[in-house]
Amino acid sequence: MSAIKYELIHECKQSGARRGRIYTPHGIIETPIFMPVGTQATVKSLTPEELKEEVKASIILSNTYHLYLRPGNKLIKKAGGLHSFMNWDRAILTDSGGFQVFSLGDLRKISEKGVEFKSHLDGSKHFLSPEKAIEIENDLGADIIMAFDECVEYPATYEYTKNSMERTTRWAIRCKNAHKNTENQALFGIVQGGMYKDLREKSANDLVKLDLPGYAVGGLSVGEPKELMCDILDFTTKLLPKQKPRYLMGVGTPDYLLEAVIRGIDMCDCVLPTRIARNGTAMTSKGKLVIRNKTFEEDFSVLDDECDCYTCRNYTRAYIRHLLKAKEILGVRLLSIHNLRFLTKLMERVKIEIENDNLLSFKNEFYKKYGYTKD
Amino acid sequence: MSAIKYELIHECKQSGARRGRIYTPHGIIETPIFMPVGTQATVKSLTPEELKEEVKASIILSNTYHLYLRPGNKLIKKAGGLHSFMNWDRAILTDSGGFQVFSLGDLRKISEKGVEFKSHLDGSKHFLSPEKAIEIENDLGADIIMAFDECVEYPATYEYTKNSMERTTRWAIRCKNAHKNTENQALFGIVQGGMYKDLREKSANDLVKLDLPGYAVGGLSVGEPKELMCDILDFTTKLLPKQKPRYLMGVGTPDYLLEAVIRGIDMCDCVLPTRIARNGTAMTSKGKLVIRNKTFEEDFSVLDDECDCYTCRNYTRAYIRHLLKAKEILGVRLLSIHNLRFLTKLMERVKIEIENDNLLSFKNEFYKKYGYTKD
Repeated sequence: MSAIKYELIHECKQSGARRGRIYTPHGIIETPIFMPVGTQATVKSLTPEELKEEVKASIILSNTYHLYLRPGNKLIKKAGGLHSFMNWDRAILTDSGGFQVFSLGDLRKISEKGVEFKSHLDGSKHFLSPEKAIEIENDLGADIIMAFDECVEYPATYEYTKNSMERTTRWAIRCKNAHKNTENQALFGIVQGGMYKDLREKSANDLVKLDLPGYAVGGLSVGEPKELMCDILDFTTKLLPKQKPRYLMGVGTPDYLLEAVIRGIDMCDCVLPTRIARNGTAMTSKGKLVIRNKTFEEDFSVLDDECDCYTCRNYTRAYIRHLLKAKEILGVRLLSIHNLRFLTKLMERVKIEIENDNLLSFKNEFYKKYGYTKD
Repeated sequence: MSAIKYELIHECKQSGARRGRIYTPHGIIETPIFMPVGTQATVKSLTPEELKEEVKASIILSNTYHLYLRPGNKLIKKAGGLHSFMNWDRAILTDSGGFQVFSLGDLRKISEKGVEFKSHLDGSKHFLSPEKAIEIENDLGADIIMAFDECVEYPATYEYTKNSMERTTRWAIRCKNAHKNTENQALFGIVQGGMYKDLREKSANDLVKLDLPGYAVGGLSVGEPKELMCDILDFTTKLLPKQKPRYLMGVGTPDYLLEAVIRGIDMCDCVLPTRIARNGTAMTSKGKLVIRNKTFEEDFSVLDDECDCYTCRNYTRAYIRHLLKAKEILGVRLLSIHNLRFLTKLMERVKIEIENDNLLSFKNEFYKKYGYTKD
């Protein structure tokens, strides 16, 4: 039996977007969902309680590469797994570390067996293979774990993309065979194939044959034009089984989230909301605000009068700006809570619009208000 | 009528320590009390709710010098005062900025009128006088405000200390005359006089004649031996009126807190608990722990099994160490909550021991457990 179960509740008649539900060992996830990222076993600056009560997150993502290097998967296993280590009792998804090691450039060497790489922390040598990645993910114990894949750069040649995609499929088979904890952890495959539709088709078809509990679309939002991403995504999601969840990796701007959901995506994640918080930027219903700017020096209004988060219930833009200028941690905390809540609240609204068969109309309205110049 | 009222509830028969109560426009303070420091209108890394619910703080301190320079007292006044600006509805005490400008060394020039100094932020020139300090403190609107004084260095000559102390007294008179908001803000005088008892006596007697709502002992814990501090403090508190609160400035180690309370002090403040949190150190009932150390790598126990704070209810030493090593903000947050709670909880215990006429016995027991080698 699979560790998770997906239930398709409704398809938006206007857009085709899916309203669903994922049952996990650590609670139910109402989809579509935005997943906050907790790279190093903490969503930067926040407590689990803030994620539950203010952000209203039901699943977070954590990074295998980072946790393997520090504090180490064996230490986390001794602590009772990642949920226990970080005191988070809702669902967790771990990536496979593939994205990070492939991003190391000159520090890594790829072979059929896996990837040899040097740690970004201390330069020490390591080797990650499909088997090793799954062993680490088994130790961490997340509810959803990702297969070890290569996320191909953009642009890439047909030849490179084809070879890489085929290896990713072979690696997915090895991941499935290595996976020791299918009762409690659901392994997702990752469709690759770059910007080539025939390769996407081959990748999807081969992975679907493995009958994994869910599928991700990888290798998108890597620098290609938005139209191209939408086109490839549209093409790819149609190849995936309707009764399994679909996850678009690394997407977190409001427009990309909406475009993804409209193309049949159920789950997204991105570091963007917490990263721009650290740079002093807030997402609001009327667009992005660089709260550090002098404009907000004496602005005693809240970040977003449509928001229900702790920050917007209690603090002014002027105070948050002061905290940021004074390099006070509370400033980053307040913006992180708000930005994450902005995206989870957007997705709550998206669920309602799907149920009302109204998502395309909502998207146009949202884009206009947010200040996007084209739909 | 004074903005605050002090009630002496009990004097410990064993030690002479005072159990009291201060009624302020923003709530009642049970004394003796430790006050967390929120230099820049935020107790570093924490929210007001954490201070109320976890630390159980009833008063915090904020710094006039810092707020004057950034974001500016006029801006805070526009925001409705410091309570409103930082969303803290309990009591606040502001210092006068004297300590900071006198610490600027070559960047400041003292005259009878006041102190000319250069901002540590941008080098811009400013002038702080008793009248200006009170104007700023009136704009900030704290419940307790401090007179503008000079905190003399240790060691200092008799001559320098005498002249400085006499000027501090003249400045206290000017502060009293400049104070515009006596109904809502209580002005405290600051006894100076360095390590010279006759100067302390003169300072205390002259300030007591001004009939201010409370008195602080300044110029201690500035590098002198602990025995000398205790001796001067012992001598000085006896000169102060019994029916007014007494505040020892800048003291925050557990032993100094206990020694101060035993010598009749009601209020203390220090940046120490949040500062050492940022350096990765925890105060516990069994002494200080450098949680960053490798010793704690696989230590899955809590920081202090006698503590009731959020951190100790939820996290292990191993997890906090990981957060600190990974430079994650949550690590600093968790240690800050714990260290502040450690001191407020110590003071809660001290109140009970005073009521039970048992504070000296408790002190000896505490010192032994904490690992202090002498009492």
